[in-house]
Parts: sequence; structure tokens; C-alpha cells
Amino acid sequence: VQSRLPDVGTSIFSVMSKMALEHGAINLSQGFPDFSIDEKIIQLVNKYMLQGNNQYAPMPGSPSLRERIASVIFKTYKVKVDLETDVTVTAGATEGLFSVIAAFVGSGDEVIVFDTAYDSYDPSIRLNGGVPVHIDLNYPDFSIDWDRVRNKITKRTRAIIINTPHNPTGTVLKEADLIELEKIVLEHNILVISDEVYERLIYDNTKHQSVLTRPALAGHSLAVFSFGKTFHATGWKCGYVIAPAYLSKEVRRAHQFIVFSVNTPVQMALAEYMNEEGHYLHLGKFYQEKRDFFLQQIKGSSFEPLPSYGSYFQLLSYKNISQKGDVEMAEELTKKFKVASIPVSVFYKNETDNKLLRFCFAKKESTLEKAATILRSI
Amino acid sequence: VQSRLPDVGTSIFSVMSKMALEHGAINLSQGFPDFSIDEKIIQLVNKYMLQGNNQYAPMPGSPSLRERIASVIFKTYKVKVDLETDVTVTAGATEGLFSVIAAFVGSGDEVIVFDTAYDSYDPSIRLNGGVPVHIDLNYPDFSIDWDRVRNKITKRTRAIIINTPHNPTGTVLKEADLIELEKIVLEHNILVISDEVYERLIYDNTKHQSVLTRPALAGHSLAVFSFGKTFHATGWKCGYVIAPAYLSKEVRRAHQFIVFSVNTPVQMALAEYMNEEGHYLHLGKFYQEKRDFFLQQIKGSSFEPLPSYGSYFQLLSYKNISQKGDVEMAEELTKKFKVASIPVSVFYKNETDNKLLRFCFAKKESTLEKAATILRSI
Ligand SMILES: CSCCC(=O)C(=O)O
Ligand SMILES: CSCCC(=O)C(=O)O
Repeated sequence: VQSRLPDVGTSIFSVMSKMALEHGAINLSQGFPDFSIDEKIIQLVNKYMLQGNNQYAPMPGSPSLRERIASVIFKTYKVKVDLETDVTVTAGATEGLFSVIAAFVGSGDEVIVFDTAYDSYDPSIRLNGGVPVHIDLNYPDFSIDWDRVRNKITKRTRAIIINTPHNPTGTVLKEADLIELEKIVLEHNILVISDEVYERLIYDNTKHQSVLTRPALAGHSLAVFSFGKTFHATGWKCGYVIAPAYLSKEVRRAHQFIVFSVNTPVQMALAEYMNEEGHYLHLGKFYQEKRDFFLQQIKGSSFEPLPSYGSYFQLLSYKNISQKGDVEMAEELTKKFKVASIPVSVFYKNETDNKLLRFCFAKKESTLEKAATILRSI
Repeated sequence: VQSRLPDVGTSIFSVMSKMALEHGAINLSQGFPDFSIDEKIIQLVNKYMLQGNNQYAPMPGSPSLRERIASVIFKTYKVKVDLETDVTVTAGATEGLFSVIAAFVGSGDEVIVFDTAYDSYDPSIRLNGGVPVHIDLNYPDFSIDWDRVRNKITKRTRAIIINTPHNPTGTVLKEADLIELEKIVLEHNILVISDEVYERLIYDNTKHQSVLTRPALAGHSLAVFSFGKTFHATGWKCGYVIAPAYLSKEVRRAHQFIVFSVNTPVQMALAEYMNEEGHYLHLGKFYQEKRDFFLQQIKGSSFEPLPSYGSYFQLLSYKNISQKGDVEMAEELTKKFKVASIPVSVFYKNETDNKLLRFCFAKKESTLEKAATILRSI
């Protein structure tokens, strides 16, 4: 009996985290923090469990959490979303993305994906019978060439996936990008799937360009967010999708048969925790300090940083050290030097290898310091 | 922009639970307990959160939980499954079922479904491009006519979905059924998707017939289980899929892009909790007492019980009271009499209406008593 899956392989994050574990390497590969989350939020989960909130949450999400989400979106982006119809809580951003794609991408539908791209986009499109249309980002600034996008639009183009702040490169879209995007989607009546999980991890006074802030664009967009990234709890698996009612309705119809609902006490705890203002307001500063610390620590090494304006991630070029392929280089760094990273070529459809490795700096200073000491020694 | 979803509607469980809430009705519709879970397991979740286990679990599940699952399966069914290759932890049984279907059901593949059927099977098959082939169970004993199954097998038949103990009817398969099933799947090289979420909720000394217990059948089967049902925590969203390595491999490839992983502290807590023997050993007795209590309480009412040998559910016929359609009857019971149930016709593709309502007895005695008092008054 054969699988019906396209050849989607194994997630690079599983591969590298496992390799790091097996070789006792410092794990800067998979994106997750190695420091503690706020004990307050743990206490809240505990409280809601003890109060007996352990059965199914409503399918679109706990009302208290959807209310909070709508209110924080209003505070952050000055945009009104309706908690009844526009907000769907998902089992992490991954399930959010998958449910969106399951709802809107059918057999033969083309979806534009910019390379390098987060590793779940392409397989999720293909699992749903769609056709990923890959367009390389410009190199080395990872900007989008919108004329190239226009040239790739066909009658079958269903959606464009954007991601800002961008994983793995740490670049961010500009207002001019959203203006171009808006023109294209209105002209061709296509959807935008906007991965904004790093919305608050943005540096150097750069402004996050959310699709939510442009009404015409928002009318065609499904924006995906993550509590794991914002509250340092990637293992709690809670995220959400914001979209106008006519799109959210379809997302929910997929979501209800994919997972039905999301962990109840986690949802209620997040809602109460978000009530206290400001937990997320200083997140940019918090992570910018980590990025700066890491950059300062690797000064004097032969690794060359590319600019990172957002996300958990810092790209380093090793072209001054070696001409090896980046997969081989990442493997050697992990096994021999005990620092794990992600080879960026795996995020390219066409296996472009710019001799870049992605390092996650969502780590304690002591972790970053140890890793940097090793990198300086190479 | 149009949805690519088949017309999958809204889950009956959402509809009825919402109606119950809005009309202040006792909710015996959606299947979940209204009593407390064991405080020990809450303490364990809390412990693992405080110890800092709040980041991504490994994609196939936490090793400690997979180890426990394999060990409990050995104790229960005397069957060895390999925790490395055969066990995948999922975001509830719903995600388990969906991932299995996503992995194995492709465009045009036929999947045999027995009506009445749990409401996610048909839409999950269609969401993945498959064709559900519905076969009615015999009435009124809800047994399977295996000759009818043989007649429906075609070159495109990909899988058969079974469910024992059965939702919504409370019937269970017999050994003779598994023997017939085994013959068919070996002859035609097709898969079995076996929904066994109520494996431990089985009454009157009946034996649960797991596909895992028959090696040849198990070699073609994906069995789906639920911690929510076994530990009274449906809102924690944790389940698992057991299948031979060559099938589990494909399930994991789907699972990794559907949710990636499952709540980490919940997985670790379940693993430790299952270490202490016996939590689940008396579950049959526990729920049998609830079923018996409910049946005893409704004695003297005009509702007529059908036999329930397993699951959370008791079917009641109202044909002595009314000739209304069951959807209308369920609505009236909820709105006017304040007891919510599920109309069984919604689980039929062809809308067979046998004047049956499904009542969930996973409730405190006081809840069951109140509901029964109302039912006796009608
Ligand atoms: C779902 S595991 C991947 C985590 C992540 O976002 C990354 O490392 O890019
Ligand atoms: C996922 S909500 C449905 C719960 C259930 O199993 C049922 O009521 O049948």
C-alpha cells in the first residue's frame, strides 16, 4: 500500500535538532527559546485546569481569548476585527497555515512562494493538490521583485504567501511592498496568506507591515500569528488566523475536521495573561538585545553576518572559511564543533547555496556566548 | 474568491452545544465529561511546565509518552509496537484521523464508511480529494453486512474506516467481524482506519476487538486512540496513531506539516501519570455504572433505549412519543425541555431517520438524574 503524499521529506528542524541532541551540540538550529517563560502564565494554566476547564473549547476558539486577540489587534494596528467572525484559534501557526491552505488551495491551484521559504509552505500546498510556484527573492537583500511576481501570475494563481519578518533571513517587507501586493491581488482577485508569526520580533525601529493595516489588502488576506513566538512557549501549540468573515468561515470549516479545537486551559490562560498590558510591548527590545549580543560576540570570527531586521534568526555567511556546501557545513559544525544551525539551501526549491547558515538567537546570553566562542575559534 | 472545500457544513457538535448554552439546557449532546479530572494529572502538567518543558516536543511525540503508550499496548493487547517507528502522538484523535486520511487518501480514492458514522470521516475524506462510499449498518442492531462491503469494493477502494466501540450507537464489533475484515483487506490490499477512541469504555464483560490483536490485519491498519476519552480531558487535545513503520512513516510526514507537534507538558504529564498502574483499568466499570444509572433513571419514560455496549453514548428512540423528524425533535427537546442530544440522522449520508437521539452519559449522576427527570416528564 503506497502513500498518497508527494515526496515531502522530513522537516529540517527535526533533522537538525535530533543531530544536535545526538552530538551534544549547542542547538541554534530549530527556532525556540532556551530560557524560562513567565511563571505567571504557568500559574494561569494551572488555575484554569484546577477550575475544571479541561473539556473541548468552542471550535473557533475560547471566547475570552478571541476577545483579547481582537482587542490587542486594535491596540497594535488600529484595526477592528470581529471576534465572532474574523478570529480562529489554531493548534499553532502551523495548523493555521495548513487549515488556510486546505480551505483555499485545491487541485491544480497555483500558489506563489518566495524562496527562501519556511519549510511547511511547499509541502502543505502539495498535500492539498496545489502547485507551488517558486520565485527567488533577490540576493543578497532578500527583497521581492514584484515584476517577476506579475510575470508568474496565471489564470490558476490562487494565492501568494508572504512572510514578514522573514524566516530564515530576518528581512522585513516595506510599505511599498504591501502597496505592490495590494495592486496585484485586487487586479487578479487572488488571496494573500500572510505569515506574521514574528510580528513583534522586529528591530532597529523598523515597523511591522501587517496586511491587516491596509483595508483593501486585508479584504483578500488570511494572516497567521503565533502565541508560541510571542510568549516564549512554542511547545504549547497555540496560534490564530485573522481573516474577514467570508474567508474565516472557510478556514473554520477545515479547522473543525483537522483538529476541531485547541487546548482549553492554555487558551484561557493566554486570554487572562494578555489582559495585563505590556507583556509583548517590549519584545522587540528584548530580542534586539539578543541579536546585538550575538553579533558582538562573533566579532573577530570569520563568519560574516547579513542584516537581520526581525525574527529569531541571524544569517551568517561562511564563504571566507570554506567552499563546502551548506548542508555539509552545518553537519560538520554540529558534529565536530558542536554548534547546530540550519543550512539555508534547504529553504530553496532550486537548492541555491549561498554559503549561508541560519542561527537562532532566542537563547540565554550564556548559550549565545558559548556558541560564539566556538564560532570565533573556527 | 471561493472556497475549495466541498460543502462540509458545520459540525453538529458545535451546533448543539451552542444551542444548549443559549437555551440553558442540560448538555448531553457533544461527548465530553462534566466531572473533574484527577488532580494528580493536573499537578503533573504544572510540574512539567515549571520545570521548563514549554518548547516544541519532538515531531512524532515525546519519547517518554511513546514509551508509555507502547508499554500499555503490550499490557492491554499483548502486542509489541515499536515506540520509535509505530507510535505517533497527535493533537487529539481528530488530527490523528485527519493525518492518516491526508497521508493515504488521494484524488479519486474510495473509502468505505459505515453509516451511521462519526461526523469527521466523510468531510476529511472529501477534503483530501477522496470519495466516501457509504454503506448503511444493519438496523436496528447496527451490525455490518460484510457481503455488502465485498460488493462495494472496486479498483479504487483505498481504505475501510471502522469504529468500535461505536459512536453514536454504542455497538461493538465481534471477533467474527475482524476475521471478515482481515480477509477482505488481505485479498484486496486495502487499508483499515480503525477509530478505537472508546477502547476502554466497554460494558457487560464485552471484549474490545482491536485491529492490533490480529497481526495480519494490524499490518494493514492505522488505529487511532484518544487520551481525552481515557483520562476525561477532551480539551487537552492529545491522542495517538498506531501503525506499522511503513504506514506510520507516511502519517508522520503529513502530521509534521499539519501541526508539527503536540503540547509538550501535557505529553510528559500523561506519560508519568500512565506509569502509575491502573488509572484506566476500571474505566469500563466506571462508565457502565453511569450507563446503568441513566437507564434506570429513565425507566417509566416513553423513550426506549437501544442496547449500548460501549462508548459514552446511549441511543433513545422517541417513536412512541412523536413522529417528528429527529432534528426537529432534538431542537425541541433542547429549546423547550432543556435537554440537548444529537439527532442520529445527521450521521447518515442518506438522512435515514429512525427517530433516534444520542445522549452522552459521561456526566455526573446529578446531571443524568436531572436530564432523566425531564425525559420522564415528556
Ligand atoms: C515547527 S519547528 C520549526 C520552528 C521554526 O519556526 C524554525 O525553526 O524556523
Ligand atoms: C470533537 S467534538 C465531538 C465529540 C464527540 O466525539 C462526539 O460528541 O461524538
